[in-house]
Amino acid sequence: MRKGLIHEILADAAWKCPDVEVISGSYRSTYEKEWQRVYHLAHGMRRIGIQKGTVVGILDVNSYRFFELQFALSMLGAINHPLNFRLPKADLLYTVQHAGDEYIFAWEGFAQVAHTMQTSVRQVIWMREDRSLAIAPEHGELTFEQLIAIGRDAAQQEPIEFGIDVEDDDIFSIFYTTGTTGRPKGMRYRHRDMLHASLQIAHHLAIHDTGAKIVSGDTMMPLIPFFHIHGWGASFFIPYLGAKLVLPERADAKEQLAIIAHEHVTWSNMVPTQLHMLLHEWEQQTGCKEHLPLRVLTGGSPLSTGLTQRLHEAGITFSLIYGGSDQLGTSISAIVDAKRLTDQERRTILATRTLPLPMVIVDVRHEEGGSVPRDGVTIGEVWVKSPWLPDGYFCDPDRSRATYSDGWFRSGDLAVWHEDSSLYVLDRQKDAVKSGGEWIATSVIESLLSECDGVIDVAVIAWPDERWGERPIAVIEMSKRANAICSEEFLWEHLRQAVQDGRLATFWIPDRIVFMDRLPMTSAGKIHKAALRETLQIRTE
Amino acid sequence: MRKGLIHEILADAAWKCPDVEVISGSYRSTYEKEWQRVYHLAHGMRRIGIQKGTVVGILDVNSYRFFELQFALSMLGAINHPLNFRLPKADLLYTVQHAGDEYIFAWEGFAQVAHTMQTSVRQVIWMREDRSLAIAPEHGELTFEQLIAIGRDAAQQEPIEFGIDVEDDDIFSIFYTTGTTGRPKGMRYRHRDMLHASLQIAHHLAIHDTGAKIVSGDTMMPLIPFFHIHGWGASFFIPYLGAKLVLPERADAKEQLAIIAHEHVTWSNMVPTQLHMLLHEWEQQTGCKEHLPLRVLTGGSPLSTGLTQRLHEAGITFSLIYGGSDQLGTSISAIVDAKRLTDQERRTILATRTLPLPMVIVDVRHEEGGSVPRDGVTIGEVWVKSPWLPDGYFCDPDRSRATYSDGWFRSGDLAVWHEDSSLYVLDRQKDAVKSGGEWIATSVIESLLSECDGVIDVAVIAWPDERWGERPIAVIEMSKRANAICSEEFLWEHLRQAVQDGRLATFWIPDRIVFMDRLPMTSAGKIHKAALRETLQIRTE
Repeated sequence: MRKGLIHEILADAAWKCPDVEVISGSYRSTYEKEWQRVYHLAHGMRRIGIQKGTVVGILDVNSYRFFELQFALSMLGAINHPLNFRLPKADLLYTVQHAGDEYIFAWEGFAQVAHTMQTSVRQVIWMREDRSLAIAPEHGELTFEQLIAIGRDAAQQEPIEFGIDVEDDDIFSIFYTTGTTGRPKGMRYRHRDMLHASLQIAHHLAIHDTGAKIVSGDTMMPLIPFFHIHGWGASFFIPYLGAKLVLPERADAKEQLAIIAHEHVTWSNMVPTQLHMLLHEWEQQTGCKEHLPLRVLTGGSPLSTGLTQRLHEAGITFSLIYGGSDQLGTSISAIVDAKRLTDQERRTILATRTLPLPMVIVDVRHEEGGSVPRDGVTIGEVWVKSPWLPDGYFCDPDRSRATYSDGWFRSGDLAVWHEDSSLYVLDRQKDAVKSGGEWIATSVIESLLSECDGVIDVAVIAWPDERWGERPIAVIEMSKRANAICSEEFLWEHLRQAVQDGRLATFWIPDRIVFMDRLPMTSAGKIHKAALRETLQIRTE
Repeated sequence: MRKGLIHEILADAAWKCPDVEVISGSYRSTYEKEWQRVYHLAHGMRRIGIQKGTVVGILDVNSYRFFELQFALSMLGAINHPLNFRLPKADLLYTVQHAGDEYIFAWEGFAQVAHTMQTSVRQVIWMREDRSLAIAPEHGELTFEQLIAIGRDAAQQEPIEFGIDVEDDDIFSIFYTTGTTGRPKGMRYRHRDMLHASLQIAHHLAIHDTGAKIVSGDTMMPLIPFFHIHGWGASFFIPYLGAKLVLPERADAKEQLAIIAHEHVTWSNMVPTQLHMLLHEWEQQTGCKEHLPLRVLTGGSPLSTGLTQRLHEAGITFSLIYGGSDQLGTSISAIVDAKRLTDQERRTILATRTLPLPMVIVDVRHEEGGSVPRDGVTIGEVWVKSPWLPDGYFCDPDRSRATYSDGWFRSGDLAVWHEDSSLYVLDRQKDAVKSGGEWIATSVIESLLSECDGVIDVAVIAWPDERWGERPIAVIEMSKRANAICSEEFLWEHLRQAVQDGRLATFWIPDRIVFMDRLPMTSAGKIHKAALRETLQIRTE
């Protein structure tokens, strides 16, 4: 039976395009070989006691090991818990305990943190760089390759058709938010949620004219960590498309560029920070004189106009995705009718306005409740309805009630709404500034300031104000290279010019510009505004 | 809640692209207006007693009425039974009774046959060309527009959120085969089957390079009747894509061309017979001097190389779909890697080899059981596994067991299998000729003969033979235009040349060529080979 389970995707790829490559560091495989290994891995897991409903943590970079584990767990109906190694250790351990992980598959690069989890789980299976079985495991521990060897023997003794007792509304995986306030919150996804949310990203990118267009014959390298919703679904839609898969493991920007050139990568996904680093490295290497023909899906935080312009000059096209682990994918920027647009208009739309995915409906609401007009100006909060929305946070009824109601997910994100139902997502509500009862979107000011020479990073945050309630202040990290730095006066002039050009409202100009050596970051690579406020000794409510 | 029910597609279109047009004859509407009407229609239906599980027959051409009914029935959880008006009357009435239709919505153009059903059902609702309410219904009968007016009032008195008690594994529709032997067989589809089978056709066409490529901004006219699996899913994937929808109603080839020009239709679907008629009309009108830039999805019977060549000359591109009501969509011709192909090779692949849809697996089996090699030569029977396969024929356990087993559907179609897992479907097994234990694919011989001037239609059928078991004979309908007719000797010479060119095996040359004035057709527009055999007084087993 074909039920729409996650591992059916890999089975199909092995069948339809057995020889298409799967590459991960020095490891070179094919979909057919991966399917064989996954089948043996499932057998091995079964032998050590993993079964339907068992929660299994995965602590690894984007590697062939992680890729394989996802499908083997699906075959057993076990629950996949990708561990976010960028979380603070206490939070990470909290998620292991809260999800009820019984086994952990840990890459040796994360041995230190994995050892702290050993007492919380039944067993840790070690994933070593050395794939030989000869390596004697320390303290009698089991390695990944040994488990596959055990599974290979087991499969010969007793062939099993896996997945018989698994249905598409069984839980496939559990993820935790990387929230900056309170404990991480867990979301559980059924096979059908993860399957359709992942595939609709690919479908949207194939149907529409986008900056991250997907075509037959692409070679794809997902740079979004698998612990972020399986790499924003790329773990699944890449084999589904039958595309050549390149896994970056620990590659830094320089190594990523080498892989892109060597494997002819045409498509990738990454957050703006990664995109920035990749571009920076490219500019260093080529002196901005060559094009890098790459299509990129990006999102998670707004793109500055400065970065957008540099990407255009480097020949990198991109689309923006809006979503998150508590809603999965919601919208992606796309051009529906390109006929009447200039190139510049086209690029602006792709960099700012995201169009809901098929089967997704959004609403942008006033604080009082009703929808804001679709005028591209009025700011409201984004509410989302989709077939793959979780039904709440795992074991957390209070926070679930506050966020999920009547089939809607309340995102806490601010956006303006356009006539074509696309969204320009501006800010997290908690990061936005409310001045005299009016929202000020900090991302718009940040994007403007990023256009100035020497500005490496910029965060606009709320400052308590007696008269206005809150006022924005800008915190800026400047380049250390003396010749590339503009003056503070230049920054102010740039803001005033933006008001004259109609790009900024007068009252959106920050009250103050503060310079800092290094802005604090979250585990997801975004600027940690709450920590920044503390550092600046701003009392928040 | 978003559950993946069929009517959510129309709700989404009304929300995402409210002003995109829906056109049907002189009726001009939009997705937003259609959604309003459908909501009122569901209210009206509820008032006359249609509820969850009620089976409702629809007897209509591809019109806005049929389009609306599909979504209104989904909202109520009622079961949609599209009636195949091309079936013999006795068979059609049999399907009404077998499915348990309680209501029938009948277009007045089919009044005569609808009257014969009146005693079998609780109520017939009449669908008139005249949309005014002023028309007094004869004998106190209810009209479609009156029902919508009733629903409009009901909605004002009592707004209802429809679909609350409907789940995606509830039955959405029931269809009957147009089989040439025995009674029609019923297949029931759940919402999830119909949704995913329909949308995967669109996704396949968007992801790959195909002759029926789908892009944002298309205008689509489905010519496949809705009683054939909702127009091969076009009823659903067209609003899903947000494309302008043009419904042909009763338009003949000449009127279809006028609509294509007037509404700027870019995409259509039709069987080869319809495609032949459209092309013929176009050639008549333009003297083969102009291009008709249309992308067409076609299938149901093989395309002759003669037609393929003429389509190319007219600028019409196409892809082939393989499937049927007892398996839904299985595969569509597509180019995965166009780099190494000439234009001619590309066209040949698109005209012959279909690639399985995402999530579909096929097998091509020997009569003895195992798979045939993927060598593009060996002939076997196509077996299909997909997430949307029906679990059997409705109330027909014997025929279900013979066709559906262990998650597989046994198609009864003969094909060769290529290395890239694409299929060249050659023949219905029952139509193929078995000569000396070897299959002869009649469609290949038919296609060859169709290349000769003056050949309008050709059928190759099995003739009992003492020595070989069966031998092929060719039955040909020639054009009446004297100057366009080739001689019988020319036909034989053409076949011998094909053997020399390696296009035909020697033993595939038919034993005899018979000329007929008119070949008998099935209700689906295919040549009725069983009837042809009878006419020629060939005894079949």
